[in-house]
Amino acid sequence: MRGRDPIALTEALLAGDRRALPRLLSVVEAGGDDAREVGRRVYTRGTGAFTVGITGPPGAGKSTLTNQLIRVLRERGSEVAVLAVDPSSPYTGGALLGDRVRMVDHAQDPGVFVRSMATRGHLGGLALAVPEAVRVVDAAGFGLILIETVGVGQSEVEIAGAADTTVVVITPGAGDGVQANKAGLLEVADVFVINKADHPQTAELERDLNFMMDLTSWPDGWRPPIVRSIALSGAGTADVLDAISRHQAHLTSSGDLDRRRGGRALAELRRVLVARLEQRADTMLGEPRHAELRDAVAGCRIDPWSAAEQILGHLD
Amino acid sequence: MRGRDPIALTEALLAGDRRALPRLLSVVEAGGDDAREVGRRVYTRGTGAFTVGITGPPGAGKSTLTNQLIRVLRERGSEVAVLAVDPSSPYTGGALLGDRVRMVDHAQDPGVFVRSMATRGHLGGLALAVPEAVRVVDAAGFGLILIETVGVGQSEVEIAGAADTTVVVITPGAGDGVQANKAGLLEVADVFVINKADHPQTAELERDLNFMMDLTSWPDGWRPPIVRSIALSGAGTADVLDAISRHQAHLTSSGDLDRRRGGRALAELRRVLVARLEQRADTMLGEPRHAELRDAVAGCRIDPWSAAEQILGHLD
Repeated sequence: MRGRDPIALTEALLAGDRRALPRLLSVVEAGGDDAREVGRRVYTRGTGAFTVGITGPPGAGKSTLTNQLIRVLRERGSEVAVLAVDPSSPYTGGALLGDRVRMVDHAQDPGVFVRSMATRGHLGGLALAVPEAVRVVDAAGFGLILIETVGVGQSEVEIAGAADTTVVVITPGAGDGVQANKAGLLEVADVFVINKADHPQTAELERDLNFMMDLTSWPDGWRPPIVRSIALSGAGTADVLDAISRHQAHLTSSGDLDRRRGGRALAELRRVLVARLEQRADTMLGEPRHAELRDAVAGCRIDPWSAAEQILGHLD
Repeated sequence: MRGRDPIALTEALLAGDRRALPRLLSVVEAGGDDAREVGRRVYTRGTGAFTVGITGPPGAGKSTLTNQLIRVLRERGSEVAVLAVDPSSPYTGGALLGDRVRMVDHAQDPGVFVRSMATRGHLGGLALAVPEAVRVVDAAGFGLILIETVGVGQSEVEIAGAADTTVVVITPGAGDGVQANKAGLLEVADVFVINKADHPQTAELERDLNFMMDLTSWPDGWRPPIVRSIALSGAGTADVLDAISRHQAHLTSSGDLDRRRGGRALAELRRVLVARLEQRADTMLGEPRHAELRDAVAGCRIDPWSAAEQILGHLD
């Protein structure tokens, strides 16, 4: 597949050749004109894959649970794709070893696709790259896409929360209940999974979660169920899938699925606009006529808001 | 102090009345025209307070260490202000209980100021509000400002990394070495603190950190020292302060302090520009003439990049 241009790769993908997938996702990650062209060509060419975000604190067992979900789904004959998203990767510039191992695990199984995603210069970061990647994977015919994040940073919660169903994985005995609340996980969760549920403080965490949920209203008519799991042994994995299915059914019957997706599309448009305007800001900042102003800012002689006023004045 | 307008409060602050500080920081957090006006008035009115960012994984003991730093600094007769930054607070809308407790602890001591910061609608978020808050606290005459973050999300690392000296707190036995690397902490650290250094795996973590640092080059002539601390008992707190002082001396003698601050001022200008352009994007998106386009995007009939092109076309 190497050496073929993005358009040819896209045509191959749309014709059913999944070998084009890794290369096309690299194009999407890299951003730029090629990514735009791929994005335009795959748009509406998928079948509307259902997306499941999986997020939670580091060490909660998200990867292990994801692996169990893959296993059970394959046993049931379902295909599944996983995007493992790591917003911290711009620093390290590489996929996690664990994801590479997983990819090798399923290398022989065309019904499973696992891919680590990092921002490699993508304009607007992963928040923009992930929905584009989802559409490419969707166009490859995967009907279910799991989006797993590494931790619970602001962008990770944002990315996982932008799925059709968001699963929040937490563990007992780690103060995760309070942490979940703080990180905004309560707001994005459609399903709570208490992993490592053989821990003695499992009931306590479940009580805390329920208490926090009692304080919240659920105008959509869906209160996140709490599912117990022991991802290491696989216990509870089917229950997690059941909870996801029930949420999917709720989204479909209530019409929320289309409403949510419409809202997300508008949010994506806004992010694209902002990213484009950000490029414009960099261009403006670099202009020779602003050299003196830049010096004044760097020398802390003028405050940034006043300086921005001056630069934007030139735009109008 | 309530009921007085921001300009009067700013004048009071610049005249030495620190009671104006909490209210002015609320103005800065809230953003908008009042925040701009306060920002303009305090700009260059400080004495160039030295800022120390304190970041690290949740549970590493950042708050406890900060409390010990306050204690030792007060024993030495130094004044100190702490901004405790919690980027997750837009979700929960409140300061952390622990910070409130700390504020009460020092309520009778005018030489200590502790404040929790959250984004309350601030345009551009905490990355913009924190440097403005720093200037207000600086203008109140505090020569040393600690900026403590709650966790190590992308924005938290960005905020703590934008201090003059960035202290990264990690703990043994939690896989923090690898996590630190992943979260980009290695890139922002000027001083490493291994907290809970009575843990048996302390030497192992120190070895791992040194190994990672051996793989890195230090063009500025400063390799982050590793300091051991037990914040619960206070052991090592003076060593942490010594390491900070040595880094401060290095920054000053090398001229890096002015260079870094100049670079940060330009980065802040860029963020302000982007925030202003973001407002513009929202205005454009809401315009009646784009109603049809919005419907097409929400209905997933046109991809976001093509839609953004159309909207931006109107701007040119």
